Amino acid sequence: MRNAGPIRVVHIGLGPIGQGIVKEIASRPGVELVGAVDVDPTLAGRDAGEICGLAEPAGVTVVATLDEVEADADLACVTTSSSLAVVEPTLTACCSHGLAVVSTCEELSYPWRTAPAIAARMDEAARRAGVGIIATGVNPGFVMDLLPVVSTGICSRVDAIRVERYQDAGRRRLPFQKKVGAGLSRAEFEEKARAGEIRHVGLTESMHMIAARMGWDLEETSDEIEPACNRNEVRGVHQVGRAWCDGRMVIELVFHAELGLPDPADRVIVSGEPGFELLVPGGFHGDTATCAIAVNCMPLLRTARPGLRTMVDIDPVSCFR
Amino acid sequence: MRNAGPIRVVHIGLGPIGQGIVKEIASRPGVELVGAVDVDPTLAGRDAGEICGLAEPAGVTVVATLDEVEADADLACVTTSSSLAVVEPTLTACCSHGLAVVSTCEELSYPWRTAPAIAARMDEAARRAGVGIIATGVNPGFVMDLLPVVSTGICSRVDAIRVERYQDAGRRRLPFQKKVGAGLSRAEFEEKARAGEIRHVGLTESMHMIAARMGWDLEETSDEIEPACNRNEVRGVHQVGRAWCDGRMVIELVFHAELGLPDPADRVIVSGEPGFELLVPGGFHGDTATCAIAVNCMPLLRTARPGLRTMVDIDPVSCFR
Repeated sequence: MRNAGPIRVVHIGLGPIGQGIVKEIASRPGVELVGAVDVDPTLAGRDAGEICGLAEPAGVTVVATLDEVEADADLACVTTSSSLAVVEPTLTACCSHGLAVVSTCEELSYPWRTAPAIAARMDEAARRAGVGIIATGVNPGFVMDLLPVVSTGICSRVDAIRVERYQDAGRRRLPFQKKVGAGLSRAEFEEKARAGEIRHVGLTESMHMIAARMGWDLEETSDEIEPACNRNEVRGVHQVGRAWCDGRMVIELVFHAELGLPDPADRVIVSGEPGFELLVPGGFHGDTATCAIAVNCMPLLRTARPGLRTMVDIDPVSCFR
Repeated sequence: MRNAGPIRVVHIGLGPIGQGIVKEIASRPGVELVGAVDVDPTLAGRDAGEICGLAEPAGVTVVATLDEVEADADLACVTTSSSLAVVEPTLTACCSHGLAVVSTCEELSYPWRTAPAIAARMDEAARRAGVGIIATGVNPGFVMDLLPVVSTGICSRVDAIRVERYQDAGRRRLPFQKKVGAGLSRAEFEEKARAGEIRHVGLTESMHMIAARMGWDLEETSDEIEPACNRNEVRGVHQVGRAWCDGRMVIELVFHAELGLPDPADRVIVSGEPGFELLVPGGFHGDTATCAIAVNCMPLLRTARPGLRTMVDIDPVSCFR
């Protein structure tokens, strides 16, 4: 990456989050969109700004593959899939083009335990290219991992960490409401949950990220999902990740998203010395936050050690202009 | 610094915070006390563990200067003074011994604006020695700088940051109660405030640390102190730091410590997109927290870029064992 001037970004994947990130990039002087890639043939040849709802054209034509991007670039922002196996070839291509990577792929946020072979390959490819790769988002990437981890910086001892996100799904975009199962019958919910269609991805990755920094050698993790119901109508999802170390539950992550939930809040509870509770009334707004944190990570890759990084082994993220 | 094995620490300065840190080191397998230095002639020749109230001797004899320490070491922990000018020669000596440094010197937490010449000298000495230097503490170092900075990681835009610490001084150690002026008359308070004896050091450093990461070029900062009174009796201190950028107040830090204050709390309020409030009911406990965060920073110096680092340009701190 160049050390001066705006960071030149190729965006790969123009779904809802990708579009939000392109808008975010357009609003910031420190970053510049120089390329846009999407496999959807209906997007190829169109201006990225038009697709993303910008007031003015971005001056960047969408192409189908990274090889077709002609502009010099510093970094690729990859928002194509939650699946690590799906994004791996894209990340490999970015490294071979010498591009640093920011991605919102949830499974990439801490793959060292869940997909160690892919993690090692990505790390090696990034080191060889002398670039950093990082996955981020509001969750995984912030509320349930970076924020609790940093909060323990003032602790002499940590016994357990619990994070709760109680969200009113009605305040989020429609695809999110569908993703959490709002409006389904209980039977439909259970069918979709079994098929993995309404699972929130990332609780396990967040738990491994926390454990790595706490020095906890986890012997077991679980990730369980059930509907949040009003009679037979599903209003949303209640999903809980739990992790055990030395026979004790040391991490519990509660992801609850429900239409019309009163008093939504994010909450980090650390048991230890000293113990404390950190409360965010109303909660962090997920849609805005994921797009913002992806862009906020970009300058961190200028000074990051090459390789596959995580939100807890890179400089602390912050907003920048 | 060695990359494996416990971090071998020389502790310099055995005042109350230094003693707390030595106890903290003794409780953790990842760090090991190998030397102890204090200029007080009544301490020289005594066991560091005995001085610090450990149940067992530390096996480390206190000496008067760093040169007298014979053991191989990786890192020095410096808790001798709040004044950067006072600690500078000690830091220089540490660098020339090849030791990384963690310090609780408040003025070292972000000296690039307040003491740029010393900052540049320390940075140069540390780079030449290939080590990192960092200053930390609960405040400055965490509640009023690192925590709000990291929290803005989910923001698309930040307009202003306000941090409040409302503390019950009655829950803190006696020197802290005296430091905040509890029990003085208003006249005595004002005399001591003028003499700088009851000033909390670090609000200005925290503001510059925040501003550096937000990209705010501050045109003015202020740091004002007044007594928190019950009739004529001073119960504590109310100190406010403020900073302006482009004619707008962008940072406000409120440090309030008062005997018997009901509902103490720490609070971070970010105005921006999205805005949010982060609340810690009861507040982080300052005495424990400062000792803990100093030790928690030690492993970060293994992978830190050499030079004078700050809490916002080093890997995120966390508790470790």
